[in-house]
Amino acid sequence: MGAVKSKRMPRAVREQQMLDAAVRTFGQRGYMAASMDEIAELAGVSKPLVYLYLNSKEDLFTACIRREARALTEAVRAGVRPGLAADRQLWDGLGAFFTHTGRNPDAWSVLHLQARTHGERFAAEAAAMREEIVAFVTELIVVAAREAHRDPDLAEGEVAGLAVALVGAAESLATWANATPGVTARQAAATLMNFAWAGLGNLMEGRPWSAPVMSDELSASGAVDVVHGA
Amino acid sequence: MGAVKSKRMPRAVREQQMLDAAVRTFGQRGYMAASMDEIAELAGVSKPLVYLYLNSKEDLFTACIRREARALTEAVRAGVRPGLAADRQLWDGLGAFFTHTGRNPDAWSVLHLQARTHGERFAAEAAAMREEIVAFVTELIVVAAREAHRDPDLAEGEVAGLAVALVGAAESLATWANATPGVTARQAAATLMNFAWAGLGNLMEGRPWSAPVMSDELSASGAVDVVHGA
Repeated sequence: MGAVKSKRMPRAVREQQMLDAAVRTFGQRGYMAASMDEIAELAGVSKPLVYLYLNSKEDLFTACIRREARALTEAVRAGVRPGLAADRQLWDGLGAFFTHTGRNPDAWSVLHLQARTHGERFAAEAAAMREEIVAFVTELIVVAAREAHRDPDLAEGEVAGLAVALVGAAESLATWANATPGVTARQAAATLMNFAWAGLGNLMEGRPWSAPVMSDELSASGAVDVVHGA
Repeated sequence: MGAVKSKRMPRAVREQQMLDAAVRTFGQRGYMAASMDEIAELAGVSKPLVYLYLNSKEDLFTACIRREARALTEAVRAGVRPGLAADRQLWDGLGAFFTHTGRNPDAWSVLHLQARTHGERFAAEAAAMREEIVAFVTELIVVAAREAHRDPDLAEGEVAGLAVALVGAAESLATWANATPGVTARQAAATLMNFAWAGLGNLMEGRPWSAPVMSDELSASGAVDVVHGA
């Protein structure tokens, strides 16, 4: 009895294993096609245990969306150091975003595609995460405007619009990068910096936004060099 | 009998009325909550006639997505005059896009939200339209690069990424504009031009991309001054 007891995993650990298996299955096969049988098998547990812990396929999917939404927003926040210049903060934030979505393509598929494709209850969960990221980007732009002493001229509505545009562009690029073999997180982040910071107009004239040199910490760690869609 | 016959509308006209009612109902109430009863009532026809013409709720929804996708891509193409400078083409295209999504908020909700939120069959229809718009924007950027004699330096992959970013930003802004009272199509287009053409960096330094003066045809017609979310 003691031996059996000592082999038991804590419920929290088991639950994370179930969520790992569920994110992978939902992300790769889609919410509708994914079965509780294959999720249980991939997690190495019985199906009744999955139902005991997570209640239903709907609740399991909701738990996946919440966990992955938190992981993504935390990854972006952790990538940004508040003391630096605004363009550097944006570059770091984009690098962290594309690195996370590139390393966790199933999670990104769950958040951006599956959560929006299978009913309004799940779509609302994904929308809450998006609002948090838009608020974060809005604050970045406000800080950048303040640095450039432009705050009285940049209306609140325009800042909100720019943040919404930037987040939409990032979501669109993350999905494209994951579906396009050989595109790295650094390339995706650089494309968006060119687009958002230097602007297409400057880019056309040969004046792209300059990425930091390779010797800085972010590049040295390889954090933004993940290959998507391999 | 002759009188009854002369009151009959051609099938094509009746079908368009059914689609008008369906787009409005699906857009405002969502695909799941919308009933065939209320669509038939709004169209002023019997429910059996809707089934006779459009077969099922799924087929009716698919027909809505196809019609509205075609209307949107045609509106954007019609807004752009190929002979003009690239930034002017982009400005015109964005004006046409935000004018169309602002004037047809139910259609935009069907295309961008409902079509992606209720199963992969519908999502594939919306994705086909998106690919067409991305291809159109890619061509615009290639032309702009050629004008600036930068084509050998702008890799195919980067152009594709910029087009994907621009389309994602536009989609995101259209949804935001429709949900935000008082935002005009012109404002949404100007925000995206600032973001995409002049770049956030220039914007922060007080160098926004300059919108054409109000006296040109687009502004004179009021085409980009539709108020969203009223």
